Amino acid sequence: MTTSFRTSRRIEFVDTDMAGIVHFSNFFRFMEAAEVDFLQARGLSVQMPYEGLMLGFPRVSASCDYLRPARFQDMLSIVVRVHTVGRKSVTYAFEFLRGEDLLARGQVTSVCCRVNPDHSFESMEIPASLRELLERSK
Amino acid sequence: MTTSFRTSRRIEFVDTDMAGIVHFSNFFRFMEAAEVDFLQARGLSVQMPYEGLMLGFPRVSASCDYLRPARFQDMLSIVVRVHTVGRKSVTYAFEFLRGEDLLARGQVTSVCCRVNPDHSFESMEIPASLRELLERSK
Amino acid sequence: MTTSFRTSRRIEFVDTDMAGIVHFSNFFRFMEAAEVDFLQARGLSVQMPYEGLMLGFPRVSASCDYLRPARFQDMLSIVVRVHTVGRKSVTYAFEFLRGEDLLARGQVTSVCCRVNPDHSFESMEIPASLRELLERSK
Amino acid sequence: MTTSFRTSRRIEFVDTDMAGIVHFSNFFRFMEAAEVDFLQARGLSVQMPYEGLMLGFPRVSASCDYLRPARFQDMLSIVVRVHTVGRKSVTYAFEFLRGEDLLARGQVTSVCCRVNPDHSFESMEIPASLRELLERSK
Repeated sequence: MTTSFRTSRRIEFVDTDMAGIVHFSNFFRFMEAAEVDFLQARGLSVQMPYEGLMLGFPRVSASCDYLRPARFQDMLSIVVRVHTVGRKSVTYAFEFLRGEDLLARGQVTSVCCRVNPDHSFESMEIPASLRELLERSK
Repeated sequence: MTTSFRTSRRIEFVDTDMAGIVHFSNFFRFMEAAEVDFLQARGLSVQMPYEGLMLGFPRVSASCDYLRPARFQDMLSIVVRVHTVGRKSVTYAFEFLRGEDLLARGQVTSVCCRVNPDHSFESMEIPASLRELLERSK
Repeated sequence: MTTSFRTSRRIEFVDTDMAGIVHFSNFFRFMEAAEVDFLQARGLSVQMPYEGLMLGFPRVSASCDYLRPARFQDMLSIVVRVHTVGRKSVTYAFEFLRGEDLLARGQVTSVCCRVNPDHSFESMEIPASLRELLERSK
Repeated sequence: MTTSFRTSRRIEFVDTDMAGIVHFSNFFRFMEAAEVDFLQARGLSVQMPYEGLMLGFPRVSASCDYLRPARFQDMLSIVVRVHTVGRKSVTYAFEFLRGEDLLARGQVTSVCCRVNPDHSFESMEIPASLRELLERSK
């Protein structure tokens, strides 16, 4: 069974560029915020304490396909899906809609890391409880 | 023969996030700025007048793979290559290096458009003179 | 009588910097978004058609005092007040709160302009209907 | 004697908004980058180790007056001056020029802080060696 999570976002003036449309780089910010909303709805975060460690999820890859431009004050609906859960990584897929129109489609892969106080990272297996929760959200 | 263009960029404080590294979305801004440097070195721009029209190059896809984090005040070297020139589109490939270390690898595909005064776009064939110049830069 | 408008905003990961707090420049983006919310609640926008012209409100000055840092996932409450309405300009005052704590206080002055299709601006008197609406919101 | 420091910056596409000009919030990013250039030319940084502590300079206030809009690919010259050095704080003044034209004028006040590993701050007196260096730059 596939369940999906849906959040929304209104385009701000600062998101636009001189071409009059949302600058393409902003969709990556929007994906991250949608992921945070998704995790928050499950009581989680992109940076969270876990058994005395601080976990973080730095991105290892990100992509987006742009079908139609988004404009100032558009209300976007963002669909978040857990696409794949690996041993150490998770891939989310996103769809950006304005009403029925699909504007963009993106994907972000993050790797589970222990974040050290000096800001260094070490990849680690996704804790079982978190994995289970992500698997269940597929 | 493959020629490549190289530009550079110093990481700013605002580029970082609370994980102490450059926020992944910024690499897309960096790719665009590197593309502008590349075009400028050839007397061109991402938005330019052409036979009474205004040409623009809205993005149709963008992707990035992150290998190592970049940090505040790092001096990055960015290699720009023309990857493919289609009838209406052009794909650039980018490499981000700090010294000898490859930090990230990205790709952006843009479509040649007539930009109307009302900010609407219509895709069109890349003008021959521009195509030739891009082909020669491959 | 003083009425004030209140909107809210959740801090995103990308809003933070390597000091672990919201980068100071973002408060200016937040002020603009709050102004848009304020105008929208009155059926207006920062860029709006008026008797065949396009009106815009480019900023002539902006300032912010920072009292306490804001952090990732903080839910801020933003109070918007019309501070002064001049012949051609309007000044908004903003307060950023987290719960009862005042985090920052800002001010933005914009000038009413006719925006020409070539993106040039000409200042003009604030139309009477708009002025009245702003005055009533003081 | 007043000495001033000068750095430069080319406007990027992403710096613009749908009004076709540089978004006002970006000038605050530009001020910070200019401050970093200024400090770097003196062998310093906005976040630096000092006698086993990490010093940071969170902003307590920032302001900007906008005289003329800046546009895509403009090359700005940014003049940095140390305006005031207090016991715990420093105020920088900035001027943004395009050729001979003054586009904007800004000011940022930062307070010297000990940055703890948990990202909390404690204000402290500016170390004597740093104060002297800033005073000499007035």
